[in-house]
Amino acid sequence: MKLGRLNHVGVAVPAMADAIAYYRDVMGAEVVTEPFAMPEQGVLVAFVNTTGEAGTAGTQIELIEPLGADSPITAFLARNPAGGQHHLCYEVEDIEAARDWFTAQGKRILGPTRIGAHGTPIFFLHPKDMLGQLTEIMETPRGQH
Amino acid sequence: MKLGRLNHVGVAVPAMADAIAYYRDVMGAEVVTEPFAMPEQGVLVAFVNTTGEAGTAGTQIELIEPLGADSPITAFLARNPAGGQHHLCYEVEDIEAARDWFTAQGKRILGPTRIGAHGTPIFFLHPKDMLGQLTEIMETPRGQH
Repeated sequence: MKLGRLNHVGVAVPAMADAIAYYRDVMGAEVVTEPFAMPEQGVLVAFVNTTGEAGTAGTQIELIEPLGADSPITAFLARNPAGGQHHLCYEVEDIEAARDWFTAQGKRILGPTRIGAHGTPIFFLHPKDMLGQLTEIMETPRGQH
Repeated sequence: MKLGRLNHVGVAVPAMADAIAYYRDVMGAEVVTEPFAMPEQGVLVAFVNTTGEAGTAGTQIELIEPLGADSPITAFLARNPAGGQHHLCYEVEDIEAARDWFTAQGKRILGPTRIGAHGTPIFFLHPKDMLGQLTEIMETPRGQH
């Protein structure tokens, strides 16, 4: 497998409105998408766009707020009440090939491949197998990059 | 201030050689720079390149291993023995203007502006003032981007 684009850095936040205000007013972000709910994942999501080189789209910051009592990020925020870096998401050309690649190396995949916040298939890998980093693998959207 | 490019994600690692092997062999990275010491910062550093859109240079992963007994990342690794995401580094056009910007907002800046791993001026901001994220601000290298 070839390392793909760093699509986004997932950042857990205790309050979405405050986080969006922070990125706009403190960090100077020009584009933050409207928050949308992903009930199956238990999160409310918004993306902060950053610029890449030469006017390309850069790596995004994915803001995630817990949605519902059993959200997978509730425990993370209990340990990090101010919020914090939660996961890294890399793109791959072929999600099934990537799944086979990590499986063959004995890496623990967390649940089935599912549709992520960009509308393409994703899966997560266990941080204990991934240098301490919760790692998301995402198929590159068709027609992009 | 305008949000600049996400230059790199800093990842603390307990053992540089293992981390480089992980990025090459597990994650499929094609370019990892030779590690170099930054004694003033108390870290050994190597960069993993990722691709951006349309063949541009993407956000890098900065691997940092403690150097010396009083390295600033020793405590982080004591809490995260496998390693983990440590900081986010954003580029700005003018480091002094950025320093004034954050100071005016009451954000705590950690120490003086100094030369960072890319040879340009940088400073760090306190994670408790920055949505739980240790944040590095870096002046864009001249002639790039």
